[in-house]
Amino acid sequence: MSQQRQIQLKKNVYNRNQELADELRERFKKAGTYVINMISSPGSGKTSLIEKMAPRLNAGLKLFVIDGDLETERDADRLREVGIEAVQIQTHGSCHLDATMIGKALEGVALEAIDLLIIENVGNLVCPTSFDLGETLRVVVASTTEGDDKPLKYPASYHRAGVCIFNKTDLLPYVRFDVAQFEAAARRANGELKIFHTSCSTGQGIEELCQWLSDQVGGMA
Amino acid sequence: MSQQRQIQLKKNVYNRNQELADELRERFKKAGTYVINMISSPGSGKTSLIEKMAPRLNAGLKLFVIDGDLETERDADRLREVGIEAVQIQTHGSCHLDATMIGKALEGVALEAIDLLIIENVGNLVCPTSFDLGETLRVVVASTTEGDDKPLKYPASYHRAGVCIFNKTDLLPYVRFDVAQFEAAARRANGELKIFHTSCSTGQGIEELCQWLSDQVGGMA
Repeated sequence: MSQQRQIQLKKNVYNRNQELADELRERFKKAGTYVINMISSPGSGKTSLIEKMAPRLNAGLKLFVIDGDLETERDADRLREVGIEAVQIQTHGSCHLDATMIGKALEGVALEAIDLLIIENVGNLVCPTSFDLGETLRVVVASTTEGDDKPLKYPASYHRAGVCIFNKTDLLPYVRFDVAQFEAAARRANGELKIFHTSCSTGQGIEELCQWLSDQVGGMA
Repeated sequence: MSQQRQIQLKKNVYNRNQELADELRERFKKAGTYVINMISSPGSGKTSLIEKMAPRLNAGLKLFVIDGDLETERDADRLREVGIEAVQIQTHGSCHLDATMIGKALEGVALEAIDLLIIENVGNLVCPTSFDLGETLRVVVASTTEGDDKPLKYPASYHRAGVCIFNKTDLLPYVRFDVAQFEAAARRANGELKIFHTSCSTGQGIEELCQWLSDQVGGMA
């Protein structure tokens, strides 16, 4: 198969996903559901962040989580154990979530009752960036242990993100990481990026993030 | 495009890669070059490991590195600065290296003079696992900050690996990480896996890893 043919086939896959994502976005808007698509490397702390955020979001705000992983129900189980409503998508090898998977995961879910839907994408800084899920906000999570050069190496994960959660700040004293350099690189990839510094161990920044997020969700109503 | 057609097209891509990987493997064998394919999440410490290992490999052992990244020459630059011969492949969006890219990167390189070729794959625990690069040994690098559940969530990255480098052990006191649980999960994915514990900060395990590796390369001659 020629390279040109491969590129065309990829374009078809992206175009089909975009159509479905646009349909989802319309559904979310009608239902008044604010949707976050969280993208990061494996182990950056997405599930821990959701665990910490859930009780701090504005009272009465109804939360629902879709967890994406290649294998296991671990993340959804973890969240359900602390009372968060969650469904797991096991992609069985696929490196990203797509709009079709999100549509299926939401079958039978009464979106109108959900204020905030958080989609925890497959841990992968590359492929998920090419698949719109109809989200209101894309969030890229970076952690202090991954190195300050990641926005330079993976610029696409920053391009379409509105927010960067810079996580595991409690580990900064123990790693080589230039925060100013990281932020400059992140902003070079995306000048509009809002950056929150957080730690699930010390709680740093979680309140501020939750307040900002609650305001966004409230502003949608 | 139907799902079945997509699956068939993917199979064609994998089959074509396998043919080229088999040709590379034959070339490496003829040249007496031992080849490592390093796979990991972004920021697990692959480049730092190579920096630390290079001066500790057996004297006279000729090393060459191929660095894979979406963007930037940073990793190859880092290695060249400390005297390691390295070429960079910038995939510009592609989530993995493939046998074609390796073949191109080696054009004009006298393989016969190289004892050990280390290929540092794109930081991604998913897609690189499906693309054989003709390597002698696949190495999966895991770090203590990624969580002990990664072998359960990303079993394919462990299936075909001969060695797991469990890196950043210096950070164990500061993170929640059950080493026994991690090793059990890694061995569940792959019962034959050899696991080295390393830290590029304290130097733990680097000597042992280099000695083992030098023995493997020596055993090929």
